Amino acid sequence: MIVIMKHGASRAQIANVVARVEQMGCQADVSQGEEHTVIGVVGNGRPLDREQLERMSGVERTVPVAKPFKRASRDFHPLDTVVPINGVQIGGEQIVVIAGPCAVESSEQLMETAHAVKGSGAHMLRGGAFKPRTSPYSFQGLGEEGLRLLAEARREVGLPIVTEVMEPQTVPLVTTYADVLQIGARNMQNYALLHAVGEAQRPVLLKRGMMSTVEELLMSAEYVLSHGNHRVILCERGIRTFEPYTRFTLDISAVPLLKQLTHLPVVVDPSHGTGKWDLVEPVARAAVAAGADGLIIEVHPHPEVALSDGAQSLKPDKFAALMEGLQPVAEAIGRTL
Amino acid sequence: MIVIMKHGASRAQIANVVARVEQMGCQADVSQGEEHTVIGVVGNGRPLDREQLERMSGVERTVPVAKPFKRASRDFHPLDTVVPINGVQIGGEQIVVIAGPCAVESSEQLMETAHAVKGSGAHMLRGGAFKPRTSPYSFQGLGEEGLRLLAEARREVGLPIVTEVMEPQTVPLVTTYADVLQIGARNMQNYALLHAVGEAQRPVLLKRGMMSTVEELLMSAEYVLSHGNHRVILCERGIRTFEPYTRFTLDISAVPLLKQLTHLPVVVDPSHGTGKWDLVEPVARAAVAAGADGLIIEVHPHPEVALSDGAQSLKPDKFAALMEGLQPVAEAIGRTL
Amino acid sequence: MIVIMKHGASRAQIANVVARVEQMGCQADVSQGEEHTVIGVVGNGRPLDREQLERMSGVERTVPVAKPFKRASRDFHPLDTVVPINGVQIGGEQIVVIAGPCAVESSEQLMETAHAVKGSGAHMLRGGAFKPRTSPYSFQGLGEEGLRLLAEARREVGLPIVTEVMEPQTVPLVTTYADVLQIGARNMQNYALLHAVGEAQRPVLLKRGMMSTVEELLMSAEYVLSHGNHRVILCERGIRTFEPYTRFTLDISAVPLLKQLTHLPVVVDPSHGTGKWDLVEPVARAAVAAGADGLIIEVHPHPEVALSDGAQSLKPDKFAALMEGLQPVAEAIGRTL
Amino acid sequence: MIVIMKHGASRAQIANVVARVEQMGCQADVSQGEEHTVIGVVGNGRPLDREQLERMSGVERTVPVAKPFKRASRDFHPLDTVVPINGVQIGGEQIVVIAGPCAVESSEQLMETAHAVKGSGAHMLRGGAFKPRTSPYSFQGLGEEGLRLLAEARREVGLPIVTEVMEPQTVPLVTTYADVLQIGARNMQNYALLHAVGEAQRPVLLKRGMMSTVEELLMSAEYVLSHGNHRVILCERGIRTFEPYTRFTLDISAVPLLKQLTHLPVVVDPSHGTGKWDLVEPVARAAVAAGADGLIIEVHPHPEVALSDGAQSLKPDKFAALMEGLQPVAEAIGRTL
Repeated sequence: MIVIMKHGASRAQIANVVARVEQMGCQADVSQGEEHTVIGVVGNGRPLDREQLERMSGVERTVPVAKPFKRASRDFHPLDTVVPINGVQIGGEQIVVIAGPCAVESSEQLMETAHAVKGSGAHMLRGGAFKPRTSPYSFQGLGEEGLRLLAEARREVGLPIVTEVMEPQTVPLVTTYADVLQIGARNMQNYALLHAVGEAQRPVLLKRGMMSTVEELLMSAEYVLSHGNHRVILCERGIRTFEPYTRFTLDISAVPLLKQLTHLPVVVDPSHGTGKWDLVEPVARAAVAAGADGLIIEVHPHPEVALSDGAQSLKPDKFAALMEGLQPVAEAIGRTL
Repeated sequence: MIVIMKHGASRAQIANVVARVEQMGCQADVSQGEEHTVIGVVGNGRPLDREQLERMSGVERTVPVAKPFKRASRDFHPLDTVVPINGVQIGGEQIVVIAGPCAVESSEQLMETAHAVKGSGAHMLRGGAFKPRTSPYSFQGLGEEGLRLLAEARREVGLPIVTEVMEPQTVPLVTTYADVLQIGARNMQNYALLHAVGEAQRPVLLKRGMMSTVEELLMSAEYVLSHGNHRVILCERGIRTFEPYTRFTLDISAVPLLKQLTHLPVVVDPSHGTGKWDLVEPVARAAVAAGADGLIIEVHPHPEVALSDGAQSLKPDKFAALMEGLQPVAEAIGRTL
Repeated sequence: MIVIMKHGASRAQIANVVARVEQMGCQADVSQGEEHTVIGVVGNGRPLDREQLERMSGVERTVPVAKPFKRASRDFHPLDTVVPINGVQIGGEQIVVIAGPCAVESSEQLMETAHAVKGSGAHMLRGGAFKPRTSPYSFQGLGEEGLRLLAEARREVGLPIVTEVMEPQTVPLVTTYADVLQIGARNMQNYALLHAVGEAQRPVLLKRGMMSTVEELLMSAEYVLSHGNHRVILCERGIRTFEPYTRFTLDISAVPLLKQLTHLPVVVDPSHGTGKWDLVEPVARAAVAAGADGLIIEVHPHPEVALSDGAQSLKPDKFAALMEGLQPVAEAIGRTL
Repeated sequence: MIVIMKHGASRAQIANVVARVEQMGCQADVSQGEEHTVIGVVGNGRPLDREQLERMSGVERTVPVAKPFKRASRDFHPLDTVVPINGVQIGGEQIVVIAGPCAVESSEQLMETAHAVKGSGAHMLRGGAFKPRTSPYSFQGLGEEGLRLLAEARREVGLPIVTEVMEPQTVPLVTTYADVLQIGARNMQNYALLHAVGEAQRPVLLKRGMMSTVEELLMSAEYVLSHGNHRVILCERGIRTFEPYTRFTLDISAVPLLKQLTHLPVVVDPSHGTGKWDLVEPVARAAVAAGADGLIIEVHPHPEVALSDGAQSLKPDKFAALMEGLQPVAEAIGRTL
């Protein structure tokens, strides 16, 4: 950490900060600049509390130096983490496509979708049984019945299942059915839930909050990792900006940036990231070209009657076309689909 | 709802939308414009699903007309809601000030703060026992021990207690100690938690998410209201923007806007909203002048050793000065403090 | 400036940075931390180029220490600047209210407004002769005829005139008519224009860009100041965020923040900052309570037929009520209106 | 346009709006909903003024229906516009790469870069002679001397030249040297400048403002088009968000969205869009995969001594690698490089 003193800070103020730093068991390296004195704080292996120093008299601000995430950091874990899921590997050479409806609505809807996406080459099946909805009057999902349908679909088509878990107390229930536990964007900083999935025996797909920085996403991954679950998959799904044409603004730069900062696999959700089905295919191609390890895409056999997020779902034929178009892009960057 | 057809939509496409609208039990009023056909959808009293129509062929977009919140809306509840809390009334003539430390750290710290804020005229005491922290390595709160200390402080100084609840399953525990259940900004869309406090027997202080719109805040209030708890207090605490000098950007216009849209009381948190103690006082004055029904302010006897958010906490003497300065502003707009 | 080296940077990389720093005529203070080496760069009085060091091998990032604005900084000019404008003083004890129509439309409209705002106690008259409009098909202002009408209104009611200038080559023309040259939000980083008004003999009202940071606003002020014009008035007018209910999000914290960072006067524009006339009064009160030195408010005798920004204009009677309501708020914080 | 009346608007208020609409020469289609009356306004071929109706008594808000851009809209010009520039075609099958230094610094720097980028397959040369800089103390460009060097480089390597013009009065000067006039992000809404380049005899490369929506970008293009210059190339270069790791957030979805909304060519600037050289290559690949018609990339032979934006410039060897990697991506989507 670095402490930047105010312009005109007194010697006593500087001495007080140095004393406090030493009291914290750290070393203080003072550099007297033209306009500001700067104090480098050399730590003792434990996380430092910036705010304590920030409130001291004469301090203008503090600047963190070390990254606040450790287990998620590539600095301490240079090799890519590959997460195995019932025969599928996320984070390796193959680009993994997870497809399915936003919400599980019925056996027919799910089976039709499952067969279609499997036929087009998807590697995993997604579908929501518990749905976070902005309005208390919207469809909230089928609950455990939805989980049972997902398990049935897995039996029938042989694709591993990804589904969202919304509460710590339903983690055990969802774990009995799902291959991957999804943490939705609105729950990225639901720390009780992160703690619970951190102790679960399933890989976790952690979606970036619409309001969250890349660093905060990595800190949430750190919660899961620090509770013992090392199988974390990160997901960029668009952030909130002032642009109204799209529902969110997909942060494409976050893909290579995350690949630099962390060893964890990174997937992209172009369906939520744009909110418009006719932007999904080009943005999916872009995500692969940018280095994403996978995609998560909404597919619905009849999006005009979907109970959730129909506007961003692809029909099966559009999804088939998307998969076909992705193939050469994956090859162009030396990967497989 | 209004459906705007694409430029050049065919008669068949328009007829299909009209047929679907009627099938939904609604009436379709078609207006043929110069460039676009517009279809007014007159509802049947139930919420409409925009996405179903949005995915139909020839549709460009849909526009909601009715507000999605009902119980929270002033349209259907014109009179101000006043929430009584052990003798304090939020939403009436008096501006209510809730003060205390970010986190409860010890009996000494809490009692010292409680006496100080009571002495300066605060009406309620705040303090966190369960703390949402970005880092798994930061202080996470004292838990139930913190709740016990809060109850002890209430006994000693006679101020009602506001404290945060982070998980559905701890709602009963927190309810046994607290006078008001606080939902933090990161949990504004934790629907399981909203459901749980909606069934609790305590008023709820609902903080706006840092990337949530005013409408989403009201939709989250609607969750609580729709589960039977009518005592909801809204809190503006700053939203995330590109401005880096302050931790968040306090949305002052949200105060009069909320007072127009809803009958619920609105309080402002200038401590989190700015992240800097030396901006708290002017922003607190601004909030009162803009029509806020209350303030929630962090006070710590020794902010330079605080375990959480010291940078934005006021020392007791600064808080006393703030209260003194607020008095004439409250009077200037015809309210009391 | 501080240089933070990458985790694992080699001795040679560190030595190279030190050598480059010394080559730039600066001194390098090396602090060897646990995870990162940090190099404090002590300057030689000239601005440092961060990017040169940022591109060197082994460098993770650089952190600026000194503020990039000097003439605008309170560090080097602790006393408040008061800008005198034909008998009005902005930046002193009195809160200065600038009122008038968004655009000058006709002699009748302007005179009616001028008499009304003068009668309610406004101190200056605003009105646009040259209008920046998003659409090439919208009313672009009356041009020089508008300036003539403004000058006539000044003669008749005796209020100094504020009007926008949009191009460097019209600065001389506008200067012959106006008392204050306004730089609009879209032109805050039009450097040719800043240069031109920096050489003009009139005070400048510089509006913050809708996506500009406080620091960038101060850097734009620095352009004007560095070209010799010391009479700069800053204006907070709302920034762009994700919130759609209001046209912009007025950054109320920027008012006390600017008063800390700079000696220049700060005014607030609640009309553009909210985009809704019925939010103007509470936000104007908030701005005064937060410490603004003035307000700039749109008033139109018949806003429903205004050629520009009618939705945010007050009718004269609402403006009169606003002025009456501001009086006690100004007094409450020890100022006059 | 659609007018949405307030809940509980009176018959008289509705009748007044209808009367005003008819007075504007338009037709009013009234649809009486459950909670709100909605009035469809059928226009008369001229742009409608929403704000006039928005200010009327009983009106809640208005919603635009027709797109405000006409000449730029694909609705009225379905075929792609291809802009020819001295043998290069932007907007056709070939992806056009524009490369060169941020600022022209010297003959050596420019010639070395020009030869390098030409050798790696770039189609055009970029370089700034007039530089918009946030700080008045930063290097502002070589001015006309820079233009002369660019013309010399064109003679020597045979690549057309793109360079920025910052003021209306220098448009004629820049036109005598440049093949394409670039409008920088900070000038996207400098209407005097848009007017001037709209009358110039050169194609215009119009960069999206960091604060501008896609619709505003198209409205600025409309300014240029409406003044007679039909050769407009749009450029996505990143928007401002809360994410601090990258300098801007490149809006990848804007590429396919613009291709839907407009017939104009779209290029992407991954250098400014990310601000970090090591993100340029993956983001450039993503832009091509998303359907961009071209790229504009900063290349500098010695970025660590660049006078401007060194942190985001590629060295010639990295640029060569980028071009090599782009080739298969372009082919994968059926285009050439």
